[in-house]
Amino acid sequence: MNIAVLGLGLIGGSLLRALSAAGHAVLGFDADPATRATARTAAALAPAGRRWQIAGSVKDAVATADLAVLAVPLPAVAGVLGELGGFRGLLTDVTSVKGPVRDLVGGRRFVGGHPMAGKETSGFGAADPALFEGAAWVLCLEEETATADWLTLAALVTGLGARAVPATAADHDRAVATVSHVPHLLATALAAAAAGEPLAATLGAGSFRDGTRVAATRPELVAAMCGGNAGAVGPALDEVIRSLTEARARLAEADPVTALQPWLHDGNAARLAWPPRAGEQRDLPARADVLRRLGRAGGWVTAVSADHRTITAVLPAD
Amino acid sequence: MNIAVLGLGLIGGSLLRALSAAGHAVLGFDADPATRATARTAAALAPAGRRWQIAGSVKDAVATADLAVLAVPLPAVAGVLGELGGFRGLLTDVTSVKGPVRDLVGGRRFVGGHPMAGKETSGFGAADPALFEGAAWVLCLEEETATADWLTLAALVTGLGARAVPATAADHDRAVATVSHVPHLLATALAAAAAGEPLAATLGAGSFRDGTRVAATRPELVAAMCGGNAGAVGPALDEVIRSLTEARARLAEADPVTALQPWLHDGNAARLAWPPRAGEQRDLPARADVLRRLGRAGGWVTAVSADHRTITAVLPAD
Repeated sequence: MNIAVLGLGLIGGSLLRALSAAGHAVLGFDADPATRATARTAAALAPAGRRWQIAGSVKDAVATADLAVLAVPLPAVAGVLGELGGFRGLLTDVTSVKGPVRDLVGGRRFVGGHPMAGKETSGFGAADPALFEGAAWVLCLEEETATADWLTLAALVTGLGARAVPATAADHDRAVATVSHVPHLLATALAAAAAGEPLAATLGAGSFRDGTRVAATRPELVAAMCGGNAGAVGPALDEVIRSLTEARARLAEADPVTALQPWLHDGNAARLAWPPRAGEQRDLPARADVLRRLGRAGGWVTAVSADHRTITAVLPAD
Repeated sequence: MNIAVLGLGLIGGSLLRALSAAGHAVLGFDADPATRATARTAAALAPAGRRWQIAGSVKDAVATADLAVLAVPLPAVAGVLGELGGFRGLLTDVTSVKGPVRDLVGGRRFVGGHPMAGKETSGFGAADPALFEGAAWVLCLEEETATADWLTLAALVTGLGARAVPATAADHDRAVATVSHVPHLLATALAAAAAGEPLAATLGAGSFRDGTRVAATRPELVAAMCGGNAGAVGPALDEVIRSLTEARARLAEADPVTALQPWLHDGNAARLAWPPRAGEQRDLPARADVLRRLGRAGGWVTAVSADHRTITAVLPAD
C-alpha cells in the first residue's frame, strides 16, 4: 500500500519505520524542516528495501497515497486536514482522543485510530519500529464507518504486531480517560508533592518511581491529551478524587488500619486481574456487529484474512 | 557480628540472605512454622560459609545476638518486643513507619531503620539478597540516639550496598507518606476505576501499568503501612487531593488545554530532576550534628571508617 505519514514525532516516526519494514511504500512529512532532514538522513541509513521517503509538503506526501495517517497532536489536526487538498484516499489518525477528531474530519473517508503505545520520551529520535508489537490499537467503528475501510486498517496494524480493538469514539474516550489521561494527572500531582523536599526525593523508591514516571512527559502533550478529552477526563478524575476522599476519611478513623482494608480490596483485585489474559482465539465473520460485540467485551483482532471476510478474534480469559 | 533477624518475610528473608552473604553469623526466626521450615531448607542449599540458622523462638534467636532486627509488620512489633526477655543488645527494625515503633520500644537501646526497598510480591519465597543494593536505608537519629549505635548500623547496611540516610522518625514519616504511602493509595484508586470496564482494561498500557503496579501489594500490608502512619499520610493525601481538584477545575474551563499547562509544570520539573544524582563524595567527622545536616539536605552515607570516626558522605548534585 502507498501510505503517507503526516507528522514524524514518536508515533509518526515509529510508524514510518514499522510500515517501511513491513514492505509498504511510505512517504513521510513533518512541518519542522529539521525533523524532515533528520528523517531523510535516517532513511539513508536504513536497510535497502526498508527505506521511506520524505516529502516537502502535505500535498506532495498524499499525492499518490492510498492511505494517509495524521500523526500530529490534536491541536495540529485541523491545520493538516486543511492541507490535504483533493486527497480522496482513506484517512486515519493516531491521536489519543477520538471524539474531537471525528468532529473535525467531517465527511471524509475516515477511520479514527489510537495505538496504545508510547514512552515518556518524544520526537523522531525516540522512534522505534517495534513500538506497536503487542500494543492495543483502537480503530473506531461508528455507525457511518465502512466496514471494508475498518478491515483495511485492521489488516495493516495487525501486520505490525498490534491488536486491533473495535470501539466507538465515545467509548474509547471514556476508557482512555481512566487508563491513560487520569494516570498522567495523578503522576504529575504526586511528583509535585515531593518537589522541594530533599529528604523525600532521596527516599523515593519503586512506588514513587513508577507512580510518577509519566510526569516526565512534555507538559504540552499531556495538556493536549487531557484537555482535548476534558469531557471524559473530568468525570473520571471526579471518581478518583471521590475514592481518595473516602480513603482520607478512613485514615481519620480511630483504627485507620482496619478502616482502610475494605477500601483497598477492589483496586487490589482489579490489579491482580490485569492485564487481561488472552482467552481462546476464534475465526469469526468480519461483520460490524461481530466487531462491536468483540470490542465491548474487551476483545481484539489479531489478524484479518486475505479476502477480508473473516477476522481472528481473541476474547479476554475469564 | 551475631545478628538475630526476627520475621522472615520479604525484607527479613532478604536480610537473612544478605547478612549471611556478608559474613555475619545470622540466626533467624519467624512465628510461622512453615516459613521456618522453608528458611531451614533454603539455608541447607546456600553456599557453605553463607548459611544462616533458624531458631525455634524469639528468645533463642536473640540469646547470643549483638543486634536484633525486628522484621515484622507494625501490628506485630509489640508482640515480638514482649518476647525479647532480657535481651540487652542493640535493637533495630525495618518497618515503614518510624514514630509508632519509637513509641513502642520505650527505653531500649534502639535505632529505628527503614530500607526503602520492596517488591509487589511478599514472603520468604520472594527474598533476594541483592534487594538492598543501592537502596536508601533510613536510620533514625533522635536526640536520645547513641551516635555509636547509629554508626554500627550504618556500617552494617552500607556493607550491604545500601545508602544510610540519617533522619528523625518524624521527618521520615512525613517523607515516606509522600513518596511511598500516598503512591499506594493513588495506585489502588486508579486500579479500582478500571474495575468492571473490559474495554478500559484492554486499552490499559504503560501509564496504567506503572500507575497501578503497587496496587498488587497485599491489602493488609498497605493498610498497616498507610494506617500506621495516618498522622502523616492524611495531610500528604490532602495535598494531592487539593492539587487534583485544581486540575479538575482547569479541565472545566473554556480552554482546558491552555488552562492545564501551568498546573503540569511543577510536577514535570520535579520528575525530570528525580532521582537526585550523587554529587561530590566527602569524608566527614562522624558526629550527630554532621549527620543531621546531611540527612536534611537529602544526602546519605556510603561508608563508615573502621574506627567509626569518619563517614563517607554524598550530597545530591544541584
